[in-house]
Amino acid sequence: MTQRAPDPSAVQTLLEPNAVAIIGASGDPSRIGGRPVDYLKKSGFAGPIYPINPTRDTVQDLPAYASILDTPERPDLAIIALPAAAVLTALTECGQRGVGAAVIFSAGFAELGPEGAELQRQLLAIAREYGVRLLGPNCLGAMNIPRGLIATFSSSVQSGLPQAGHIGFVTQSGAFGSHCFALARERGLGLSRLVTTGNECDLDAADCLAYLAGDPDTRVIAMHLEGCRDGARMKMALDLVQASGKPVIVLKGGESDIGAAAAMSHTANLAGADAAYDALFRRYPVYRAHSIREFIDVAHAAAQSAIPRGKRLGLITVSGGVGILMADTAVKLGLDVAPMPQAAQDELHAMWSTATTRNPVDTTAQPVADPHMPADFQRVMLRDGNYDVLINFLSMLPLAPALADKLRPPLQTLRADYPDAVLMIAALCTPEARQGFEDDGYLVYEDPTAAVETASALTVLGERMAASKPWSRDTDPALATLESGRRYGEYECLQLLEAAGVPSVPARRAENAAAAAEAATELGFPVVLKIASADILHKSDAGCVELNLVDEASVRAAFDRIIANARHHHPEAALDGVLVAKMLGGGVEMAIGVQNDPTFGPMVMAGLGGVFIEILEDVTFELAPFDDAQAKAMLERLRGYSLLTGARGRSVADVDALVATLVRLSEFAAANADVLDSIDINPLMVMTAGQGLAAADAVILTRGNP
Amino acid sequence: MTQRAPDPSAVQTLLEPNAVAIIGASGDPSRIGGRPVDYLKKSGFAGPIYPINPTRDTVQDLPAYASILDTPERPDLAIIALPAAAVLTALTECGQRGVGAAVIFSAGFAELGPEGAELQRQLLAIAREYGVRLLGPNCLGAMNIPRGLIATFSSSVQSGLPQAGHIGFVTQSGAFGSHCFALARERGLGLSRLVTTGNECDLDAADCLAYLAGDPDTRVIAMHLEGCRDGARMKMALDLVQASGKPVIVLKGGESDIGAAAAMSHTANLAGADAAYDALFRRYPVYRAHSIREFIDVAHAAAQSAIPRGKRLGLITVSGGVGILMADTAVKLGLDVAPMPQAAQDELHAMWSTATTRNPVDTTAQPVADPHMPADFQRVMLRDGNYDVLINFLSMLPLAPALADKLRPPLQTLRADYPDAVLMIAALCTPEARQGFEDDGYLVYEDPTAAVETASALTVLGERMAASKPWSRDTDPALATLESGRRYGEYECLQLLEAAGVPSVPARRAENAAAAAEAATELGFPVVLKIASADILHKSDAGCVELNLVDEASVRAAFDRIIANARHHHPEAALDGVLVAKMLGGGVEMAIGVQNDPTFGPMVMAGLGGVFIEILEDVTFELAPFDDAQAKAMLERLRGYSLLTGARGRSVADVDALVATLVRLSEFAAANADVLDSIDINPLMVMTAGQGLAAADAVILTRGNP
Repeated sequence: MTQRAPDPSAVQTLLEPNAVAIIGASGDPSRIGGRPVDYLKKSGFAGPIYPINPTRDTVQDLPAYASILDTPERPDLAIIALPAAAVLTALTECGQRGVGAAVIFSAGFAELGPEGAELQRQLLAIAREYGVRLLGPNCLGAMNIPRGLIATFSSSVQSGLPQAGHIGFVTQSGAFGSHCFALARERGLGLSRLVTTGNECDLDAADCLAYLAGDPDTRVIAMHLEGCRDGARMKMALDLVQASGKPVIVLKGGESDIGAAAAMSHTANLAGADAAYDALFRRYPVYRAHSIREFIDVAHAAAQSAIPRGKRLGLITVSGGVGILMADTAVKLGLDVAPMPQAAQDELHAMWSTATTRNPVDTTAQPVADPHMPADFQRVMLRDGNYDVLINFLSMLPLAPALADKLRPPLQTLRADYPDAVLMIAALCTPEARQGFEDDGYLVYEDPTAAVETASALTVLGERMAASKPWSRDTDPALATLESGRRYGEYECLQLLEAAGVPSVPARRAENAAAAAEAATELGFPVVLKIASADILHKSDAGCVELNLVDEASVRAAFDRIIANARHHHPEAALDGVLVAKMLGGGVEMAIGVQNDPTFGPMVMAGLGGVFIEILEDVTFELAPFDDAQAKAMLERLRGYSLLTGARGRSVADVDALVATLVRLSEFAAANADVLDSIDINPLMVMTAGQGLAAADAVILTRGNP
Repeated sequence: MTQRAPDPSAVQTLLEPNAVAIIGASGDPSRIGGRPVDYLKKSGFAGPIYPINPTRDTVQDLPAYASILDTPERPDLAIIALPAAAVLTALTECGQRGVGAAVIFSAGFAELGPEGAELQRQLLAIAREYGVRLLGPNCLGAMNIPRGLIATFSSSVQSGLPQAGHIGFVTQSGAFGSHCFALARERGLGLSRLVTTGNECDLDAADCLAYLAGDPDTRVIAMHLEGCRDGARMKMALDLVQASGKPVIVLKGGESDIGAAAAMSHTANLAGADAAYDALFRRYPVYRAHSIREFIDVAHAAAQSAIPRGKRLGLITVSGGVGILMADTAVKLGLDVAPMPQAAQDELHAMWSTATTRNPVDTTAQPVADPHMPADFQRVMLRDGNYDVLINFLSMLPLAPALADKLRPPLQTLRADYPDAVLMIAALCTPEARQGFEDDGYLVYEDPTAAVETASALTVLGERMAASKPWSRDTDPALATLESGRRYGEYECLQLLEAAGVPSVPARRAENAAAAAEAATELGFPVVLKIASADILHKSDAGCVELNLVDEASVRAAFDRIIANARHHHPEAALDGVLVAKMLGGGVEMAIGVQNDPTFGPMVMAGLGGVFIEILEDVTFELAPFDDAQAKAMLERLRGYSLLTGARGRSVADVDALVATLVRLSEFAAANADVLDSIDINPLMVMTAGQGLAAADAVILTRGNP
């Protein structure tokens, strides 16, 4: 899976061109070919704009050219706004002229089916021949807002541009891009770049990410994904983002079965399993939002504010009831609503005797009479409570302009004294009061719960920014032992895994009843007998497993029954005798395994056995390879995790061994990614702490293995 | 627990008075005693306003009176805006004048501690003596918006009144009331009444609910609760609401431990367990919101729209990606995103060949060119898809006024043709477009996920409106067998429960080893032996339980050991011999029980045994008494419910017997509500379908039982 790395320089050519040609330029600014000319003229783009139109001398008062070959200067960027059939010729001319990148608005390519896909293939061949990089086809274009490069036909722009700012925005969907563009404008959000990638025949979201990682105008990246064809490229792009220290907010649909089915029909992209996306995002400074509102709120907050280093949340309100509501949501989201130290509480109490001081802190409505109080109280909370985020609920106080004006100055001083704290205000505000608080460095929300939710999202980003590491990890080439298309029997599977660092139960293969009895005595009773055959997958169903055999006589009898059953139920199967395995008891049963995701590669699964996996589907995933900390976190995400740590008088299981085993399994899976289909280790018997663990059964399937 | 019923007529006197006196009226409209005079003058209150102030002839240009005894007409309502110390005298004069109700703004009562509580007690005694009903003290007052009765000192009113409408609003918190009042005004929500109940020394939230149930101006009730002292009155009020057919939206904090602790310190109310509130609301047409935003959104939607009868949700968008996001949220919330019938899909396809037609339906951006398309498509969806709710995502299309004007007329016709459907639009709108759609009977949201969330809340209301029944159920007086303060041994507990309809395992009490062996033989082996003593609660810890005894000899030996252990560990305990019980196997272990909530009475608990209850705390609650349907729903809410219904090849458990047992237990608990503390039946062995169940151990604690 060696992949072409994402190419930020190609996106730079696209978004920072010397000059722009519009092929198919129209004199009518309401037509698709007319809009970019109109937008570029109005938005202050500094370089030359070359309308290309063979039938006119001027287009919207600019000199027009019959062909891009005629332009006075070689433009870095061409916008192609022609019917699909005319695009190939236009692109060839772009290539001849030495254009660096082309935005292709035109629909009629891969999104229409096989014929369109063939046209798209030809398009890409021309682009490759001349070294032109492509955005689209079937896309809404791109914008560099600070430079006034508005290379789109989105009608959204007709109502105005968003202000220039620090959010770099990438989406595969033109409709979604238009919507968020309009939303950003209506909400006063500042954008640095906006790119819609459409069919992604060449440049894709990963290229855009890589570019935005290095773009000095961009502080925060907001990405809407429908799907991702090349997981390795996406990882490389996220490595660059991680190194840049910028957070990413992602919106990706398809979590539900119905959503995933709709996504399949909506996009030509092959989307990997939704759980693989979650696993990917968890490894990087990425927050996954679940609604447009959250997507925009979190991106805005991350662009305007410091990212918190911890999860301690201080709440201060003018209404006790709202403090309770905020605390409820904060606890549900895993924030730490830690109480104030007693001395600090005493200090607040001395300042206002009817205040509630623990956290949530309640000033009552006293800030109406004493507008210094919110800042004074928060100063004590920051100094002694060590909170990473403070939310100050001020109800409708800032609707009164005189009061808002009195609240601001002490809050400005507080802001300056605690530059690293995330400070939020939840209140009904006049537009002026809201703008004032925002100018002072406060994040402002109407709804107090929305403030808590955004605080939680920022702390997730903070945790991931602190923990994330570049993806690339060496895997030991000696682990790449699987052969494509080969079938492995249980004994072989256990031996392969044992060699890779996954211990298995002591076992021997026996060719006859006497050898089985001898092996059992050596291993120690009780034992399990199972048919040894790569051709029989469902051994229990065929009567080919016998458990809890306590002496030599029962082992001998079981051997004969198992062989007879195997011959009866699977007369075609090649038999390798019987596997005699020591029967372990007393541990915690787990099930672990690997699925090889078509987009993101091997994904390791862990779950507790029995009802946890069968009834509750309590399993967690992590992309391979991973390290001890990630394996531990994977276990901690299990709902039944406390079963491993001695809950309710149980013994403590060997979590260290389990962590080490998951890491080894992830490395084995990564080393064999090209040929592996799946691994299923079930049960894995985890003994008490210090006693290790052992796989009691394993199935490995390779690609091309029916 | 016989309770005074809630009194709607007292609240009517308060909110629909002939005239209003303001005791402590000030000439300064910015002071607490001046504000209600100012507000009443400006808000168009039709009756006389009598300022009471012994030092002035006029107050704010109205004739003032030295005492309420001097007013020309007897006012139904007096507002008392005096320091706490002066309130008793003022109230006495109100009583002498024959005032029906008084609103007491003054703080300084029970919220301050024991001294204030004594003052509040005296206040109530005066009120009772004269038959004056009280709102407050320590409250922000009340409003009847259509009548211009603004009996509050909230500074929120200075910025304007909300429009008159159909949401009746009750809160115990003045600060919260002010906030929602301001929010309603800013958001354009229509209110009918707003009452803040403060310390609730007389009239409480239940009285207000009962009044709003009968108030013709009110279609929807919005209630913010901090706590409820008298659960029986609340049930009676909700019975009235249920009979009126009006939905209730509740916001109540304290779900989390920290929130509950803050609630305890914030309010003098004794709040019952949060789970009891959930159980209460589930029985009525009540939707519990978890944020102010949700509270307001759902109340507004319920006031403006029909309540859906089912959970079928149709989604139609101009952006496939947003359809996927909406479907994800809908599935997570349990809505039915059912596909369109194929014939209807074909019809949509014929109308626009690039549409996606399954559900979510995607028109692409074609409504820009064909503004009839959203209505035409939705007509097919309503006619053939049988959806209860439709959400139409229009992105930023309605920001273009000309397009919005073209979209509206066909949507108006559709609205008229399908009056029962809930129709929502999610889009960025100009204020005019938004108002237009709302006037046409559409619910309008900026965020598409918020539309889905509100749709889900409305379907919950719809379900509960269809299912809810008045609370009052007869309980058999013969079931009231528990005696207060008495200790019951295990054998007695099992016999009491058996008599109440909860089967228990076959068991005998034996006084000596020989009798135990004989009992075991009669019952059939294997058996369990346990000490019989009301004085020994933790029998296993004292070595007083032996399981799985398979013959007479082991029963005899176990008898001797158990008696010896009991004498050793509990020398003070009175022993009633040993209980010999048949040991059941092969069923599903459950734990069921009862907690007697201080506010809402007995609450039945059900959980699956083992890891479900120990590790996952997977238990559900229902207030007693309840019927089969409620018991069934209680089981279905268990995360591990499928363990009872044959998941993964398990046998199907006797759910019918379990349902019947839970209903019997709820009736027994309700009949003994006055003396019961708790019941704990664990394990309850539920056998396969048709085989019944049996309690294998039970503890019943009564009040006053240490």
